[in-house]
Amino acid sequence: MERLDGRRWNELRSVKITTDFIKFAEGSCLIECGDTKVLCAASVEERIPPHVPFGTGWVTAEYSMLPRANRERSKRDVAKLKLSPRSAEIQRLVGRSLRAAVDMELLGERTITVDCDVLQGDGGTRTASVTGGFIALALACRKLVEEGTIAKMPIRGFVSGVSAGIVDEQPMLDLCYAEDSNAMVDLNCIMNDLGEIIELQGTGEGRAYTVDEQRTLVELCTKGNRELQKIQREVLGVL
Amino acid sequence: MERLDGRRWNELRSVKITTDFIKFAEGSCLIECGDTKVLCAASVEERIPPHVPFGTGWVTAEYSMLPRANRERSKRDVAKLKLSPRSAEIQRLVGRSLRAAVDMELLGERTITVDCDVLQGDGGTRTASVTGGFIALALACRKLVEEGTIAKMPIRGFVSGVSAGIVDEQPMLDLCYAEDSNAMVDLNCIMNDLGEIIELQGTGEGRAYTVDEQRTLVELCTKGNRELQKIQREVLGVL
Amino acid sequence: MERLDGRRWNELRSVKITTDFIKFAEGSCLIECGDTKVLCAASVEERIPPHVPFGTGWVTAEYSMLPRANRERSKRDVAKLKLSPRSAEIQRLVGRSLRAAVDMELLGERTITVDCDVLQGDGGTRTASVTGGFIALALACRKLVEEGTIAKMPIRGFVSGVSAGIVDEQPMLDLCYAEDSNAMVDLNCIMNDLGEIIELQGTGEGRAYTVDEQRTLVELCTKGNRELQKIQREVLGVL
Amino acid sequence: MERLDGRRWNELRSVKITTDFIKFAEGSCLIECGDTKVLCAASVEERIPPHVPFGTGWVTAEYSMLPRANRERSKRDVAKLKLSPRSAEIQRLVGRSLRAAVDMELLGERTITVDCDVLQGDGGTRTASVTGGFIALALACRKLVEEGTIAKMPIRGFVSGVSAGIVDEQPMLDLCYAEDSNAMVDLNCIMNDLGEIIELQGTGEGRAYTVDEQRTLVELCTKGNRELQKIQREVLGVL
Amino acid sequence: MERLDGRRWNELRSVKITTDFIKFAEGSCLIECGDTKVLCAASVEERIPPHVPFGTGWVTAEYSMLPRANRERSKRDVAKLKLSPRSAEIQRLVGRSLRAAVDMELLGERTITVDCDVLQGDGGTRTASVTGGFIALALACRKLVEEGTIAKMPIRGFVSGVSAGIVDEQPMLDLCYAEDSNAMVDLNCIMNDLGEIIELQGTGEGRAYTVDEQRTLVELCTKGNRELQKIQREVLGVL
Amino acid sequence: MERLDGRRWNELRSVKITTDFIKFAEGSCLIECGDTKVLCAASVEERIPPHVPFGTGWVTAEYSMLPRANRERSKRDVAKLKLSPRSAEIQRLVGRSLRAAVDMELLGERTITVDCDVLQGDGGTRTASVTGGFIALALACRKLVEEGTIAKMPIRGFVSGVSAGIVDEQPMLDLCYAEDSNAMVDLNCIMNDLGEIIELQGTGEGRAYTVDEQRTLVELCTKGNRELQKIQREVLGVL
Repeated sequence: MERLDGRRWNELRSVKITTDFIKFAEGSCLIECGDTKVLCAASVEERIPPHVPFGTGWVTAEYSMLPRANRERSKRDVAKLKLSPRSAEIQRLVGRSLRAAVDMELLGERTITVDCDVLQGDGGTRTASVTGGFIALALACRKLVEEGTIAKMPIRGFVSGVSAGIVDEQPMLDLCYAEDSNAMVDLNCIMNDLGEIIELQGTGEGRAYTVDEQRTLVELCTKGNRELQKIQREVLGVL
Repeated sequence: MERLDGRRWNELRSVKITTDFIKFAEGSCLIECGDTKVLCAASVEERIPPHVPFGTGWVTAEYSMLPRANRERSKRDVAKLKLSPRSAEIQRLVGRSLRAAVDMELLGERTITVDCDVLQGDGGTRTASVTGGFIALALACRKLVEEGTIAKMPIRGFVSGVSAGIVDEQPMLDLCYAEDSNAMVDLNCIMNDLGEIIELQGTGEGRAYTVDEQRTLVELCTKGNRELQKIQREVLGVL
Repeated sequence: MERLDGRRWNELRSVKITTDFIKFAEGSCLIECGDTKVLCAASVEERIPPHVPFGTGWVTAEYSMLPRANRERSKRDVAKLKLSPRSAEIQRLVGRSLRAAVDMELLGERTITVDCDVLQGDGGTRTASVTGGFIALALACRKLVEEGTIAKMPIRGFVSGVSAGIVDEQPMLDLCYAEDSNAMVDLNCIMNDLGEIIELQGTGEGRAYTVDEQRTLVELCTKGNRELQKIQREVLGVL
Repeated sequence: MERLDGRRWNELRSVKITTDFIKFAEGSCLIECGDTKVLCAASVEERIPPHVPFGTGWVTAEYSMLPRANRERSKRDVAKLKLSPRSAEIQRLVGRSLRAAVDMELLGERTITVDCDVLQGDGGTRTASVTGGFIALALACRKLVEEGTIAKMPIRGFVSGVSAGIVDEQPMLDLCYAEDSNAMVDLNCIMNDLGEIIELQGTGEGRAYTVDEQRTLVELCTKGNRELQKIQREVLGVL
Repeated sequence: MERLDGRRWNELRSVKITTDFIKFAEGSCLIECGDTKVLCAASVEERIPPHVPFGTGWVTAEYSMLPRANRERSKRDVAKLKLSPRSAEIQRLVGRSLRAAVDMELLGERTITVDCDVLQGDGGTRTASVTGGFIALALACRKLVEEGTIAKMPIRGFVSGVSAGIVDEQPMLDLCYAEDSNAMVDLNCIMNDLGEIIELQGTGEGRAYTVDEQRTLVELCTKGNRELQKIQREVLGVL
Repeated sequence: MERLDGRRWNELRSVKITTDFIKFAEGSCLIECGDTKVLCAASVEERIPPHVPFGTGWVTAEYSMLPRANRERSKRDVAKLKLSPRSAEIQRLVGRSLRAAVDMELLGERTITVDCDVLQGDGGTRTASVTGGFIALALACRKLVEEGTIAKMPIRGFVSGVSAGIVDEQPMLDLCYAEDSNAMVDLNCIMNDLGEIIELQGTGEGRAYTVDEQRTLVELCTKGNRELQKIQREVLGVL
């Protein structure tokens, strides 16, 4: 079965990561996964939120879509005076995923905020935000080390995310928007470089799915994340 | 290994469901899972949101914590002028889960809103909201049938949710708050009565986890959901 | 003239107070006045707002209706991004009433917030919030004494509230919703255990009313409050 | 006992009403009660809110303080993104009071909004808003009659408001701010020209008060309202 | 060509400034330019915002229209939960203009907020806010000097604002609302008493305009501001 | 005198316009003026706001900074629940400027919204938004013509914007951020291709400025806009 864009069922879309896309952020990149484009920017601030223990750091994320990232223009959050619930859900996922990549004691008493702004959305924006956000985060940490602010890279290992789904009863890796719209099942999986799961969110959008189907989808994601982390490693070199 | 409250590792907390806890809602119940208490109320309105196809129905959910549901008082959302991002995440999960239980064509052009208000929170409020919300939803549908508004029960089958986690390297079913706070891994699983997955959210809070560990946790949830649905069936009888 | 529910014109609805309905609050109760059910929770915090003199305490209240407390579902305040003006009016009344019950110097530099959340509304929710809120407040104070945080009960005396109105030219005590909707005149009266007035709000909804009519209504409320305070005394014992 | 400004205990402050203070409103006045100055403007709109029966009209009020109406500058509501709860309480009172003055069938299917903006506040702003708001409302109605939009004046009679209180154990009429700050008891009373009560709000701010004390305060307000309505009649002539 | 109100093309509307219109503000005036009426109030607070250097002061402005200042009633900002973008634009202009009048070192570590509330709007409200706001500001500064809080008047010179425009191809000074609605070009100009420009905002509303036309409009504004500052000087005397 | 980046006093920064930077918008470009980068996207919607006459169109603009566009991260508008007043001011300017470029009758009953999102800010973001926004707008119009939706290009001519200022008593064209921070005078000028002014905003930030100085700055802007429109013409070809 051929996919819309000619990919095989277990094939990622082409990925392009342009580091330092904006120059003021301590770390940044533009990540492109097919037609999905997310600008990720990591900002370091020398303070921590109240719930964080003294001496340790914090990592958080914010996610937003530009109004015309999609096929139809959407209103800005500020015009509606509320964060879109979908954005709220996604930025919590991205934040948890990136926190898992960081040793908070090595980071020390500072906060890194990773802003993920979707310039163009064609499916998979939440996982692209994790994959690209990790690059921005690692670049910011590297800058802290190079400046001598912290002694050692606080990154524990690579972290990336990818989706898989069941479309027309066929499991597929890395759904684009047109596939995602028709998917019966949609699963997002964030993994580390040991192939372990950091976050997994599966949704039976069109129908419930079996434990076996889930196993297949997680395997697809394992393959996809391995490939994404290879690209991350090429971009960043050794951590 | 004994748990805090003496349960075995694969044992649910005691569950109590009081139907018709409030009398104006078309369907309602108070669900108690251990010390977690959620008031679930299903309201029927004869209109559908713009994105829903003519002739079909819609199910949505709202989730909120009363200010003193927890160990510390929290500010009301309205005082902060925003829905808590955590609540936004949860109510999207509950909404998707309950929609999976309903045949929207049988429901017809009407919306059922299921309000899940946590009176007391001791872990597992989101899954209790699904399990109790299903009861409220089914009671409201039954009322529509009994009134003759719709011809046939639009409920496809039972839907419930439960959590499992890894605490001190021990997988456990249905974490209470004290366990949840110490869990390395936390997984919430919504299932139908065929044991299929509707929603699955796993989070490596303290560490990443393996695909094998995930399998174990899903199995625990399968057992838990089977037991919860037995209780739902006792409460509701045949759908 | 018989009332809708068979009561006499000067008779209260049946009152039931379940203390410690939720376990984390320092004091709590579920108060049921007929079909009106309000969950009252008192939370102690070791800080005072800026306008309160050093060394003295503060008591405040918040009031809200759950979305399906009434015949029709109402939107949550947070969805409208504003506190309902009616709730604002009521919670100011409840706060002033409960403050009148407390010796702020004995309470010392801490704030007690009494949350009154209406689970089911059938008329008289604001006065039920005062009557039940007083119980929650007193239980929280008792806990502070028992813990040794404060030396002496800071409660000056019992405080309760009840409504009276004129329906079909007949004065009546403790209106339920159906009566309230048809009332020409509606009066809410908060009193202490000396029969003195703490708050009195009379509204000529259908027509203006005479000073004599008002006297009659206040007398009815005096009787009602005396009976309510008898119930409060049974629940709490000596203050 | 002499009052701060030399008045007798049962004497109103001097009242000045300048009609048509702003020219675009269908009716307007600046009312000055001592140093309290409220600009009242009545606007007619040819539509009614959803809850109003077809063929009948509606009257509503909004109340606000300019930021420097008082001794200290206060933030604007919009800067805090919420209507002050005090303003919410007051504008509900003003709206109910003015609605009592109008025959909604004679008014016909239109809404009159009375904006009461306090330019300078020195106590008694809510009752001045009622007294001045009535003038603006009546002028707007007169304009509707003069234009031929409605056949007959829809005003049922004069409506005014005044406060009374107990300061240093002395009942007093029409408290200014300095008196109000020291009042043990504060009562606001809105009356029609038959001396009947439309709204009555009594608050035991410093202590509870007896039914006898309340009677005295209502009598004071009766006297005050009679005098205020005499001034209204001079301003408006026959209704 | 005669103007609507009989003025010549280069003639100001009549200007009336009533100082101390409200008594609590450190400085205040009601400024009337034709039918435009703005209440300006300057409030002194002994604190500065974070971005202001220690030892120096700050001046800021807020601008708002009362709901019925205009031909049609407009909703209050707080009802829409946002500052009107037009008000935001104007209050930034007024703030910058008034800051230009003040020596921040002489003012010392305090903030003066100038509230400009439009009671009645008939064109030119933003420039009237500057002209009247300057009076309120200067009066507040004078009070600070008279009280001995600061040693020397921190006002550098007179500041006023006026508009000019092109209506029916005719340049005109000080447009009223009816002229402004038909203007092709509209220019607002804030000047000091050396005839220098502090703020200039020109807008080609109906068509673009030439550099020569702009010169003509600025000359008109120079004349207008000279006359306005003569009035300011009469009101204030020597600064 | 040499400028920070080696430019001459009357020289623009290098300008780069990448059209169709995002693919779903009817027209889009990324405009880079030195280090300032703005993503401009024009969206066509087949409806008009209520105040627009039937049969004619409307053009509006929104402006926002990404959180890390600048040297320091700023909070998102939605986190503060309000549009930044600076953004409100700018988007009104951009909207007015772009409307001046369009024949609303040729556009017909539709709205074009031009979103200007600053990815990186280094001074001159509001004028870059106009210059780039014009490109996005023209591309969207061209698409409407090519699709046959409208018969004829509704663009009247080129529109661009540039700033000039006085730094160290030296007039300069197209200030970058470091220059802008030290500018005594700052002037933004939007012009059409006849060299006529559409919008002109001059601010004496550090000191007032003379009418002669203003003439010099407008001449600088005339030169700059001529060069910018040459670039626009190269990008778009004949309109």
